[in-house]
This record gives sequence, structure tokens and C-alpha cells, in this order.
Amino acid sequence: MAPPSLIVDVHTHVYPSSYIALLRSRKTVPYVYDPPSGADPRLIILATDDDPSRPQELRGRPLDAAYSSWDAKRSFMKLHGINVSVVSLANPWLDFLEDPEEAAGWARRVNDDLEEVCRESNARNHGEGVCKLYAFAALPLKASSEAVEAEIGRCKGLNYIKGIIMGTTGLGKGLDDPALEPIWNALQKNKMTVFLHPHYGLPDEAFGGKEIVAQSGHVLPLALGFPLETTIAVARMFLAGVFDRYGSLEMLLAHSGGTLPFLAGRIQSCVDHEREFKQNGGHKQGPVKGIWDVLKTNIYLDAVIYGDIGLKAAIGASKSTDRVLFGTDHPFFPPLHSADEKWPSVTTNYAAINAGVGDGSEEAKDILGRNALKILDIDL
Amino acid sequence: MAPPSLIVDVHTHVYPSSYIALLRSRKTVPYVYDPPSGADPRLIILATDDDPSRPQELRGRPLDAAYSSWDAKRSFMKLHGINVSVVSLANPWLDFLEDPEEAAGWARRVNDDLEEVCRESNARNHGEGVCKLYAFAALPLKASSEAVEAEIGRCKGLNYIKGIIMGTTGLGKGLDDPALEPIWNALQKNKMTVFLHPHYGLPDEAFGGKEIVAQSGHVLPLALGFPLETTIAVARMFLAGVFDRYGSLEMLLAHSGGTLPFLAGRIQSCVDHEREFKQNGGHKQGPVKGIWDVLKTNIYLDAVIYGDIGLKAAIGASKSTDRVLFGTDHPFFPPLHSADEKWPSVTTNYAAINAGVGDGSEEAKDILGRNALKILDIDL
Repeated sequence: MAPPSLIVDVHTHVYPSSYIALLRSRKTVPYVYDPPSGADPRLIILATDDDPSRPQELRGRPLDAAYSSWDAKRSFMKLHGINVSVVSLANPWLDFLEDPEEAAGWARRVNDDLEEVCRESNARNHGEGVCKLYAFAALPLKASSEAVEAEIGRCKGLNYIKGIIMGTTGLGKGLDDPALEPIWNALQKNKMTVFLHPHYGLPDEAFGGKEIVAQSGHVLPLALGFPLETTIAVARMFLAGVFDRYGSLEMLLAHSGGTLPFLAGRIQSCVDHEREFKQNGGHKQGPVKGIWDVLKTNIYLDAVIYGDIGLKAAIGASKSTDRVLFGTDHPFFPPLHSADEKWPSVTTNYAAINAGVGDGSEEAKDILGRNALKILDIDL
Repeated sequence: MAPPSLIVDVHTHVYPSSYIALLRSRKTVPYVYDPPSGADPRLIILATDDDPSRPQELRGRPLDAAYSSWDAKRSFMKLHGINVSVVSLANPWLDFLEDPEEAAGWARRVNDDLEEVCRESNARNHGEGVCKLYAFAALPLKASSEAVEAEIGRCKGLNYIKGIIMGTTGLGKGLDDPALEPIWNALQKNKMTVFLHPHYGLPDEAFGGKEIVAQSGHVLPLALGFPLETTIAVARMFLAGVFDRYGSLEMLLAHSGGTLPFLAGRIQSCVDHEREFKQNGGHKQGPVKGIWDVLKTNIYLDAVIYGDIGLKAAIGASKSTDRVLFGTDHPFFPPLHSADEKWPSVTTNYAAINAGVGDGSEEAKDILGRNALKILDIDL
């Protein structure tokens, strides 16, 4: 029997109370600042947010309920007809914890927090319609490889953890770092999907310097820096042969793969023309499996792309509608004008799916929910 | 009467003899190095090519006939059934000439060289089939604004110059530099299409550092750095309101716009959510015209994207097949194996067009040639 046709959001973030406690304990990015004036606390997660020329109580963004409240998450879901959310810790996860023991401890605490919130929420009746929560866990990457593997195994045993969220830096050297191979192996072995998400963007120089970036508000870092960061991270994994060695590693890429669906042809063409792979060093032979095959076998794409042009490219690159999954990026990109309106960032993505594959079509139902239930092994 | 159905290549480079003479006169990037051993000269155009750990006669790439020979260009055209080439000076054009007089002088010399070669070549019979050359001119950007405007006007009066090729740095501060406004104005007034082309890529740090870049051969800088550079340049122009002020400025973007067709939705969403535009500084109100409108009114895209997924996104972003133009990127990406085979980099783009809009369809004929004849005002 086909799974029910529900709407599942695979790209929706939260800073659970355990994580807020961690950020409150810090004075450097990422941190939460509580103004002595009693004004709303500030969430300062990007290096660019912590601008010393601005008063501290204006840096970053207000830490309003949308970031940490589960009631706010459920209200958002109901407002947009979302039945299931697979929440993930928002960036920058636990990347900044350098102490192995501390990282391992916080990972257990945060992941247990997520599991418990989902368990408790799913046991309750939230009124009309299905309203269920699942989660991607965070890994203590700077802990020992054994500790990370242990946390992967532990999370696999939890009921509501359905994968892992990860940034693009790994242990600080990117995702082609050979030191990550035991992690890929453990993730593959445990069939834990990796939700790959950007956070670091590109250096200001890539955009022409700090001043140009600031003039854009957050447009250049968010609209371009984020997707380019994801593309570079996956391209490096591809070039280093990670997908050759871990043929059944499954990754869900944020923001429809950054730019991967559009650039895959150019990437493959450049690889095919690369004399260096045959001559002197580098990654020697280059990747064996082609990038189009990687897109069909290792990669899933979310549908957070804000237009049917991009969505169709994501579907095309995946060679089917079975590998593209609806998401919202909640609680980021809230409405500018009124608190209770539907979020344009979300309705734009609904509209893109309807325009891309047809309102109410089987393909739309797959993208909106059925794919996620199947791929993330969610049994309601 | 509809223009004839010919194949026109709008993305095809050359280093004409005048430009080779300029590069031979230099000892720093970009330059041509003639090994005292009598081995083939080397063309060293990228900073990363001038690696001091390698012998000078192995740096960059061999300056073979494909880069500067017009016979080689015509042979390439015949091999691939191309009837018309709109050649452009290959990167880095004249960007590196800091002296205003020197820049203006070289621009005149190079553009006259291109005009003369086209005139002479088009007057001759090259055997079976149409084989005609036109060119994009290069601008002496570091010359005075008046001198640049004068060169634009002068080129407009030449018979075979059909537009301008430009890199992404302008006067060194990017294409949103207010100092470029007289140039945009002059280009708009003279109806000279700007062929925007990358050269500088992204800083090595964007890819994880020099060593990671080197391991990829040229894949990371060429497959990702180039298209991201183009996307950033156009996004900055868009955010700064250049397309609002110069509503009929026409730009042809290399490599199908970098990543613009795929990211346009995300760019517009970020702009729409940007509080900074309404609050404190930056570009104040942000752009007026939306990015999708810019794509339909100011921008043309070449079809150098190596796959039908990307091509369809380019067509979709343009809202029609009328704004996408065939190109090859010759003489870059030659075949690895044999000198006389058809170039896979070209046949991949032919295949993408056939798969994307149908082999022999009216849309394919538009993309393959008719659009270019119309847009660049080429009357054979």
C-alpha cells in the first residue's frame, strides 16, 4: 500500500533548549546575548553578524520564539498544512566545539533533547490533522572517530532520529578529508542519511570585500554564498572519490544542491578534460563514477529553490521526482509585514512544485511528502 | 523573411597576433614565455598557472595554433558545421593595462586587428558552406571614461564588431562601481551588447585553500570558480540597480549565466526578505526591477552548459528560446585523445540543445543561430 499523501518538511530548523543553553554559555560566535536592558536576547551565529561597530543588542537577530519554541514550530506547520517535520539543529550545529569530550557530551544532550521532544509531542493530540515531529541528529565531529561512530550507532537506535545534519567543514578541512572516512563508513553502514547544510558561505573577497557584502544586506552571503558553499563541498567529495568508496552513502543536499543540478554538466566536462588526473598527482585518476550517476545514486535534493525553473533542474538532475523532497527552511525567511500571514518563502516553494510538476499530481505528492517518508524510513 | 538557419558560435575566443605581441612584451601574468630551448611557447594567463615550483616552460599551456591561428579557427568551424563565429579576445582582455594611454592604444590596435581579420576572411571563399567571422571588441577600461566611450563609438562604426567582451572586475572594483555608469550609458546608447565573461574565479580559500585547488587539476576553478564569478558580478549589478538605471543595457552571459538561472529564485527571495534595504543603508531600497525581469529584458545566455538540464533552466529563466545562443568556448577544452576528432566539449552542447528542445526543431534553429543573427544584428 502506498504511504499516505501527507506534507513532510525535511528542511526545518530549531534551536532546542539544550542548544540555547550551550549558546548562552558562550561569549564568541556563535552565542546568545542577553541585553542587560531586558530587551530580547540576540542570536549571533555568523561571524559577519558580530560586527563590533554595532551595539551588541543590535547584532545578529532577535532570538524570538520561532527559533526555539516547539509550539511555534507546530503553529507554523498548521498554518502551512505541513503534517510532518523532520527538524534539524540549525547551524552551526556543534562544529565550534573543539574539546572532544565536550563535543561528545553536548551531542548526546542535544540529540536526546530532540528525541524526547519528538516523543512527547507525537504522543499528544495537537488537534485536527497529523502533526508529527522527527529529527536529524548532530554529530560531535571533533570528538574521537570512535566517539562519533558511537553517537551514530546510538542515534540509529533512537525512535525519532532519522538521519544526521552536517555542515561543510567536517573536522575543519572539508568533507574530502581522509580523516572523515570512518564517519562516512559508519553513516553508510547504519543507513543514516546525511542532510548537508551550508553555514560558512564564501570569503568576503569572493564578493569583492566586506563593504560590498554589507551593502547587500544578507543577500550575497545567503543567496549566493550558501549554495556555492554546498556545491564546493560536494564537488570536493566527488573529486576525492568519496562516492566511489562509499557507493551507498546517502546525502540530502540543502537548497536543491546549491548549484549542483545546473553545474553538473560543466563539472563532468571539466573532469573529462583534466589532463592533471592522468599526468602528475592531484587526485590521480579523478573520480570513477560520474557526477550524473552520483546525483542519481547518492544524492537527494530538497525543494527549497523558490522557483519552478530551479525545481525542474533539480528533478532533471535526479532523473526522477523520487529524489526531491519538500522543505521550508523555517524559521528563517519569516514574512516582513505581518506575523500571522503565510510565509512567502514557503508559498513560493509550494507554487514552484505546483508549476513544476502539476498541482495535485502524483509527482507533487511524492515531492511534498511520500519521498521523505520512504527515504527517511518514517512510519507514522 | 526569416533569417537563414545557420549555426552561429557566439562564444569562441582568439588571441590575435596583436594581442600575442602584447603578451610577449610582458614578464608577469598574463604573458607568453618563449623557452630558450626552442620548445613551444607557453601561454600563462592565470595567476595559478604561474607556479614558481614548476619550470617556466611547463607553466600554463602550450600556445599552439588553436589559440591564435585563424586557419585553425576556420578548420574548427568546418569540423563542427559552424557557419559564423563571433570571436572574442580571450581573457584577461586588456584588464591588466593600468596606464590609460597604453590601454587605449592597445584597444585600438587589437580591435582594428579583429576588424581587419574578419574583413579579409569574409572577402575570401573558404570552400563549401558559409564561413564568416565577426568579433566582440575589447575595451581599454583603465583609460579615461571619455576614451572608453570614444572606443565604444568607434567600434560601433566598424563593420565586423558586433559587441564588447568584458570581464567581471571593471576598473578593479567590480561592475557595480559607480565609475562605470558612463560606460553602461555609452554601451546602451550605442546598442552594443556586452559579452560578460569570467576570468578571475574565486579566491583559493573559497575552495579550501591552494592545495585543494591544485589537487583538482583545473576542475574547481574552471567548473565552479568561473560560473560563480559571473553570477556574483551580475548579482552585484542587479543589487546596485544598474539594470534599473540602464533598462535597455543588453548583456550576454558566458556559460549560461554561471548559475543565475538556477539561483534566480533564491536571489529574489533573499532580496524580498531583506530588512536592511528598508532600514539602514546598504543599497537602500534594493533593486526595483526583479531578477526574473532582468533575465527577460537585459540578459542573454549562451548555451555553453554541457547538458540539457542546465540548458532547459537557461531557457526557462529566459522565458523563451529567443534569448539563448549557441557557443563552443573554443579553443579551450580541446579533445584529450586525438587532434582531428570532433570536440566532446562542443558535441556535448549540441546534444544538450537537441535533447532540450528537439533535434531540428524551430527552437533548436533559434538557439543554434537565428537568435545570434538577430540579437547581434549580423547581416550576412
